[in-house]
Amino acid sequence: MTRSVDEVHALVAAVTNRPGYTSSVGTRVLLAEPGRVHLSLQRRDDLLQFNGYFHGGVIAGLADHAAGGAVTTLLPIGRIGITVNLSVTFIAPADGEMIIARATALTVGSTIATATIEIESRTGDTAHPCAFSVATLRAVNHGDGLPDQSESM
Amino acid sequence: MTRSVDEVHALVAAVTNRPGYTSSVGTRVLLAEPGRVHLSLQRRDDLLQFNGYFHGGVIAGLADHAAGGAVTTLLPIGRIGITVNLSVTFIAPADGEMIIARATALTVGSTIATATIEIESRTGDTAHPCAFSVATLRAVNHGDGLPDQSESM
Amino acid sequence: MTRSVDEVHALVAAVTNRPGYTSSVGTRVLLAEPGRVHLSLQRRDDLLQFNGYFHGGVIAGLADHAAGGAVTTLLPIGRIGITVNLSVTFIAPADGEMIIARATALTVGSTIATATIEIESRTGDTAHPCAFSVATLRAVNHGDGLPDQSESM
Amino acid sequence: MTRSVDEVHALVAAVTNRPGYTSSVGTRVLLAEPGRVHLSLQRRDDLLQFNGYFHGGVIAGLADHAAGGAVTTLLPIGRIGITVNLSVTFIAPADGEMIIARATALTVGSTIATATIEIESRTGDTAHPCAFSVATLRAVNHGDGLPDQSESM
Repeated sequence: MTRSVDEVHALVAAVTNRPGYTSSVGTRVLLAEPGRVHLSLQRRDDLLQFNGYFHGGVIAGLADHAAGGAVTTLLPIGRIGITVNLSVTFIAPADGEMIIARATALTVGSTIATATIEIESRTGDTAHPCAFSVATLRAVNHGDGLPDQSESM
Repeated sequence: MTRSVDEVHALVAAVTNRPGYTSSVGTRVLLAEPGRVHLSLQRRDDLLQFNGYFHGGVIAGLADHAAGGAVTTLLPIGRIGITVNLSVTFIAPADGEMIIARATALTVGSTIATATIEIESRTGDTAHPCAFSVATLRAVNHGDGLPDQSESM
Repeated sequence: MTRSVDEVHALVAAVTNRPGYTSSVGTRVLLAEPGRVHLSLQRRDDLLQFNGYFHGGVIAGLADHAAGGAVTTLLPIGRIGITVNLSVTFIAPADGEMIIARATALTVGSTIATATIEIESRTGDTAHPCAFSVATLRAVNHGDGLPDQSESM
Repeated sequence: MTRSVDEVHALVAAVTNRPGYTSSVGTRVLLAEPGRVHLSLQRRDDLLQFNGYFHGGVIAGLADHAAGGAVTTLLPIGRIGITVNLSVTFIAPADGEMIIARATALTVGSTIATATIEIESRTGDTAHPCAFSVATLRAVNHGDGLPDQSESM
């Protein structure tokens, strides 16, 4: 049994807003539908590297979270996607006021899933791609040490 | 002209302690010598994902910073390593009180460098590997929009 | 000075058809234009793994060559793209009569370039994606031990 | 039930020597024991790229096969490792008379496994690392369309 569109959005929002890394850095859910999740982060001094750009780890974290969301929306209720491998290619400075990660699930099997994630750097109406990422995830049960289904991704 | 061991440590410490992401999350420099940099992060609620483990982005960020450090220590003064591609494989839960990233430069050429990074999860005297990462970096001049040499990696 | 469309196609065809791995496995150039190269391989017993699918190394090799082509078409004459990192995600069995790799250059700088490559498995009019790849390349001069410009990628 | 050391070697040799890509390129099994597989390839004109070095796809294929072997040796009888993601970083020219890939299983779970692979280029007694690879694999039953256990990896 898979999730409805409303359940998908509620699930992604709930896990993103829980206390922890994703809420601490200010992650916002722009879109969450079956197979696709878009997230954004506003520029903040504590997210930058020495040159004033978003830090690579912050970009990787947004990509990772978006990929987990995109895959989980297609898994049966009670199953979630956990990243096994994340490859991030940095293609231009993330020098904008905001970064946006758009994840698309490529394949979702019973135990393995894959997703691609495009990350752009945006200032007002101007944007450019700043990173590209591919994630491999495995599907696990909530019983693997994870919290209540209502709040978890 | 390359850097002395003392200059290497001072450089890595300076860039790590600057205001920004790395100091905000509490990165500590355990070791910095030519070709090798070890960094640690203490567990903190705002670094965790929904299941109570260190977030994948936090692990990726520590790996990225350690790789940049390890490579930069072998570059001529005035040159720094910027990550182009980072691949992180998550092999076990990062459920400890601390994570430690140990980066080793594999190759450092005039424009391209590579490094591997082992990340472990540690609680007291008990530790286990939790992630493995490979980074490809390019060497750039400080003049590429970077801050003063004394503070930059 | 960059290459014309005709020069681009001639260059990719010349390097693909040279004696060596790419011609030996039967690589065909379907399309070569600035920033994009499409290549195909016909199924052959010596390209398969034990389960009857195209071997992962054969898929990786086609992706690698397509990426090198796509990037080189955008480099100045006398410069070529050499792969530094190749990440391949295998998403479905490559069980068709043919595989096709479509590479697109994402970014091409003076020393570093990146490309994505979609690989599909095809039998007649039926096709499905079987792998997805991201490549990081560096640009080098022909003088770095490479053959005559007329034949080299 | 896992395999004995003799069974491990027989399994890796059998799958490597089957008609197909691995035997066609001349893959030799140097070592196969639980968690570790070393393979070699002799230089041959049809394995080289335009510059006279081993082709990236040939290196990737050897790494892939070694990783599959290293992981499969630790799986229960009837289960095999299939690569999901392979990342290869090319660190020096593969210009030797031989390349050798040494794979080590990092983790082997019930459905997911990871391995690292070091590839060296060797001429006589002189060798240097030429590539470094990380693989993520999934464990599948032989029933997933694979051949008889006696011959399959």
